[in-house]
Amino acid sequence: MLIIMGLEAPREDIEKVKTKIELCGCIPHEIPGSSKLAIGITGPTNKLNEDDFQLMPSVHEVVRVTKKFKLVSRQMKSEDTVIDFGNAKIGSKELAIIAGPCSVESREQMFLIADQLKNMGINFLRAGAYKPRSSPYSFQGMKEEGLKILDEVKNKFDIKIVTEVLNPGTLPLVAEVADIIQVGARNMQNFNLIEEVGKTGKPVLLKRGMSATVEDLLLSAEYILAQDNYNVILCERGIRTFETSTRNTLDLNAVPVIKSYTHLPVIVDPSHGIGIGDKIAPMALASVACGADGLMIEVHPNPAEAMSDGFQSLNPKQFEKLLGKLSQLAPIVDKEFELCRTVK
Amino acid sequence: MLIIMGLEAPREDIEKVKTKIELCGCIPHEIPGSSKLAIGITGPTNKLNEDDFQLMPSVHEVVRVTKKFKLVSRQMKSEDTVIDFGNAKIGSKELAIIAGPCSVESREQMFLIADQLKNMGINFLRAGAYKPRSSPYSFQGMKEEGLKILDEVKNKFDIKIVTEVLNPGTLPLVAEVADIIQVGARNMQNFNLIEEVGKTGKPVLLKRGMSATVEDLLLSAEYILAQDNYNVILCERGIRTFETSTRNTLDLNAVPVIKSYTHLPVIVDPSHGIGIGDKIAPMALASVACGADGLMIEVHPNPAEAMSDGFQSLNPKQFEKLLGKLSQLAPIVDKEFELCRTVK
Amino acid sequence: MLIIMGLEAPREDIEKVKTKIELCGCIPHEIPGSSKLAIGITGPTNKLNEDDFQLMPSVHEVVRVTKKFKLVSRQMKSEDTVIDFGNAKIGSKELAIIAGPCSVESREQMFLIADQLKNMGINFLRAGAYKPRSSPYSFQGMKEEGLKILDEVKNKFDIKIVTEVLNPGTLPLVAEVADIIQVGARNMQNFNLIEEVGKTGKPVLLKRGMSATVEDLLLSAEYILAQDNYNVILCERGIRTFETSTRNTLDLNAVPVIKSYTHLPVIVDPSHGIGIGDKIAPMALASVACGADGLMIEVHPNPAEAMSDGFQSLNPKQFEKLLGKLSQLAPIVDKEFELCRTVK
Amino acid sequence: MLIIMGLEAPREDIEKVKTKIELCGCIPHEIPGSSKLAIGITGPTNKLNEDDFQLMPSVHEVVRVTKKFKLVSRQMKSEDTVIDFGNAKIGSKELAIIAGPCSVESREQMFLIADQLKNMGINFLRAGAYKPRSSPYSFQGMKEEGLKILDEVKNKFDIKIVTEVLNPGTLPLVAEVADIIQVGARNMQNFNLIEEVGKTGKPVLLKRGMSATVEDLLLSAEYILAQDNYNVILCERGIRTFETSTRNTLDLNAVPVIKSYTHLPVIVDPSHGIGIGDKIAPMALASVACGADGLMIEVHPNPAEAMSDGFQSLNPKQFEKLLGKLSQLAPIVDKEFELCRTVK
Repeated sequence: MLIIMGLEAPREDIEKVKTKIELCGCIPHEIPGSSKLAIGITGPTNKLNEDDFQLMPSVHEVVRVTKKFKLVSRQMKSEDTVIDFGNAKIGSKELAIIAGPCSVESREQMFLIADQLKNMGINFLRAGAYKPRSSPYSFQGMKEEGLKILDEVKNKFDIKIVTEVLNPGTLPLVAEVADIIQVGARNMQNFNLIEEVGKTGKPVLLKRGMSATVEDLLLSAEYILAQDNYNVILCERGIRTFETSTRNTLDLNAVPVIKSYTHLPVIVDPSHGIGIGDKIAPMALASVACGADGLMIEVHPNPAEAMSDGFQSLNPKQFEKLLGKLSQLAPIVDKEFELCRTVK
Repeated sequence: MLIIMGLEAPREDIEKVKTKIELCGCIPHEIPGSSKLAIGITGPTNKLNEDDFQLMPSVHEVVRVTKKFKLVSRQMKSEDTVIDFGNAKIGSKELAIIAGPCSVESREQMFLIADQLKNMGINFLRAGAYKPRSSPYSFQGMKEEGLKILDEVKNKFDIKIVTEVLNPGTLPLVAEVADIIQVGARNMQNFNLIEEVGKTGKPVLLKRGMSATVEDLLLSAEYILAQDNYNVILCERGIRTFETSTRNTLDLNAVPVIKSYTHLPVIVDPSHGIGIGDKIAPMALASVACGADGLMIEVHPNPAEAMSDGFQSLNPKQFEKLLGKLSQLAPIVDKEFELCRTVK
Repeated sequence: MLIIMGLEAPREDIEKVKTKIELCGCIPHEIPGSSKLAIGITGPTNKLNEDDFQLMPSVHEVVRVTKKFKLVSRQMKSEDTVIDFGNAKIGSKELAIIAGPCSVESREQMFLIADQLKNMGINFLRAGAYKPRSSPYSFQGMKEEGLKILDEVKNKFDIKIVTEVLNPGTLPLVAEVADIIQVGARNMQNFNLIEEVGKTGKPVLLKRGMSATVEDLLLSAEYILAQDNYNVILCERGIRTFETSTRNTLDLNAVPVIKSYTHLPVIVDPSHGIGIGDKIAPMALASVACGADGLMIEVHPNPAEAMSDGFQSLNPKQFEKLLGKLSQLAPIVDKEFELCRTVK
Repeated sequence: MLIIMGLEAPREDIEKVKTKIELCGCIPHEIPGSSKLAIGITGPTNKLNEDDFQLMPSVHEVVRVTKKFKLVSRQMKSEDTVIDFGNAKIGSKELAIIAGPCSVESREQMFLIADQLKNMGINFLRAGAYKPRSSPYSFQGMKEEGLKILDEVKNKFDIKIVTEVLNPGTLPLVAEVADIIQVGARNMQNFNLIEEVGKTGKPVLLKRGMSATVEDLLLSAEYILAQDNYNVILCERGIRTFETSTRNTLDLNAVPVIKSYTHLPVIVDPSHGIGIGDKIAPMALASVACGADGLMIEVHPNPAEAMSDGFQSLNPKQFEKLLGKLSQLAPIVDKEFELCRTVK
């Protein structure tokens, strides 16, 4: 259930509505909007009586929310959520590009790629310090040492850091460095972790699980919003199907479908989505063409020598070429993407 | 195996090579190319000795084909196959757009939509006279009567007809009217039907089966090429996965993957691929963005009254708007698409 | 809709009901039952008025059928359908075992295996004369010659022949030899073929398509029953999923689910379902344990030399051992299976 | 790599081998066997030289392990792993039955069901104190209070407790009460959690993820064995496919496949696997028929009133009937299952 009030509603009226909700054992959530104030309600809403609210001062409307997901739904908030990072935004008309290597491998590697990306006008750097790997014998990341490198890079290049958290134990360390905390596909339904991540208040990048439906993804996001953290970015990265010629099946259908269900930004990771280096650029273009708010792309100074996922990384030159195409494509789908002057 | 000869090779030398192939119980296929002549070989090629051919006059090279599919592979023919229909092409730089209703419903409906589409510069009209339906109690198409209407439309509007064949019995009737014979997803592995369709020599539009891998699709195309019919258009139209928020999961990854394996043109049907009317346009744009040679789109004069699949049809106005976007997108991905003058 | 009449209803009353149905443009189907006579109705049943029938002589009840599939549903006919072949039945308490090689390979092979199977008490012999193959270059079966061999075997060993039909063109030839006409997974939605097969009046073994839901399978069976051919056997043979360690994913859940929806017999093909020779026996036992009415199993005199699917065939000795286990298992799940005396 | 030594090998020789392994930066794992002692090796085994070990005293053989999973493989340990709980075993000939409600709901409920199950001879009680739920607004379990109830039940009825852990934070609490720590499907690739669980040394029940391949499952188990905890039970509980008539697709093929790859016990959860109350019994029988070492079944005193998953729970009477069938089935597949005297 959702209580719509005017933006001009006095604080007193708002508090009265919230108190009434709490008296019934439910939780009120103030949802920021540009033309009206909405109070979302979660909990045992069957105990609430619509009519009781309709007559309260400053209340314009009472709306039933019919989807299983509440706070993430367009019914709760019709306008797009925009997450503002100062020098860049995610969810606005501005196309958001997150780029970088799969893993932090060394200080040199990170300084090199951060410099290259920053010069191309990229404001979000991705790189994993902790790596989830199917086999216990694979490289698991540089861990705390990797985080330290990311912190240095962040300060030196004024670039936002996107990095993955694997468990609540290391969350405080990750949250200190990350501008956006990434939750990987395998942890999308690790509900305790996502709740804890939500509580940090930091923007969260939530990747869709390999066998998660669109509804599952939105319900997981709901766990984060229920912590009153509205800064969630959803990421399509491919699902598991019978097809074996590609690493995953990138479900681009999900982009317009998710955008119609939720106000949250949606980005696409074509690197994992197809898993074949020379086919990432076309899938990146397709992602933007069908309405993605941004992209997350693996870029490595030297893909052939990457410690993980090199086969699906672009080198800086290939990436720069893709940026050129994106800048041409963006306006066609009502997005903006300005190439940095340094890109020829 | 593949024998590469010079374009200037005398007929005599070519025939010698072909005879040698036949003597070993194999079948030679002359494959048209712009810079060289290739002789593809199918059958028990293990009986052939590479060295025997290498020394024959006019033979430049002997190539082992390592994929299960032979004639469709880029190894056999590196250049893109272009199918020329006089006033339009499929497989060239020119973006090919096939549009029209799911089913032929009446003479009035078809004349109306053909007129609208032709005015928008569309050269390929799709409409099913025979409809494969999961339930025996659903509308199965106007059948022979539908074909007659298509024939009238074809002559009156000078538009190419794309229509589906369901079984060998009605193939002669369909082949008489169709400029492109469509084989639907459910018949992709109806090998007898596709062989018979191949033998007509007419261009074939082969849709990917709901659970067919990319390799399966290429092997089915191979059945047609093995009849010496090289005019095959492959069509991605969505696969079956666990996701239930869309009708199918459009596998756009398949587009660049198939293009790298084969010289045949690849188009996409976003109408079946997502199955939600207001999300077809974004998926159409995405299809072209990742490299499709064309699109097949359901357009109905009045989707709300369609006898089948109305929920996934565009009306002419929505379609025209999409064409505008496509004309902007095409040059970015090295394609051409000129809007007709009559489109404002 | 379904009209229930007493078994003692005079023909005159029955005909009146049928005529009334036909006058509304619908088709009546007399459905044999042991305690009552049901008249199933297909077509535009919305034109029928329930009340009109309720008052007609000998009519006991009028039932709405709510599933998309009608004639196959338990609502239409609650008792199990039993198909009687004289010396054996399918759908009764008696476990039905269909065994034999993937393909007819030679007269010697077929005589040898038929003799071995008959000695084990097997009454149904499977073997393909026409083989659907993903690649046009694979062995496609002995075709007409194979049918002739099957005909000889049938007469000599008094064993029922189960063999696959691939297209309407060769259906008359197949129907002449086959006691049960098999429609393969790839043709499950080749609606024209299954209608034609239905019209022969012969028992039909309908295999589930690789990406067909249980509902799709039942709707395809409905096509056959709508031809007034009620002798349909459904066969689960594995579906396509992301798992690659087995050829297919045998969906045994489907067995009790299908049995609850329909009166038709359900058998399982564990050979295709798992595709690993030494794991067929456990899956055969599992199939019967969850309620299958029978099994279809690939048995070859010498699997290592089979021309197709040898890796998933049992040799006669392995098969005999399985039969021993089945005879122990059957009574636990309320089935009967007597071992032949000759089996030690 | 695997070093095979005689059981009579002096400790001195064993330590020499282990030291040599450690000197190369690898980790030795002593693997208990009945006829020989195996030293498994993980880490950068490419630095090891086979020949160096072949000549060491008491070394019989050096074996290359070719699968990605090492310690879990049959190559490392050919005999079945049996986990001994005193009054019951898992992995032996004795069929292991784990039963109980989805969630701990109250002290009364748990005492009632524990009494009923114990009277039927059941030695393993399942019930979740912490429940992972797709929606943040669903019942999440009684948590610590639930654990306390389980502890009481355990002491009063001398029954082993199987209960799920959701995160490292509550692991110590769970480990104190649980005899077997369950890791749910959604956490199968929560590598940090499974490592921590492994370190407790307690037996672990690892459920297969909804989109995990058999290889993924074995690699996750490898994480636990790499902590030198060999007491892992694998559990098939259904995968996600396109089929919608059942909650999941129970992949029984996986049972014989996993058993051939690993020495670890494999059980099946048909309750989640099909998710339809009246079809759990047939799937339970099928699971045992194809070789499962045991079953995990939801049994609730009153399914209609269960707080979660009631639709897929058996009531005690239905469960007792199933036990009767299982006792008849077990000997056919070389298992033992004795019905308790109290079961009529």
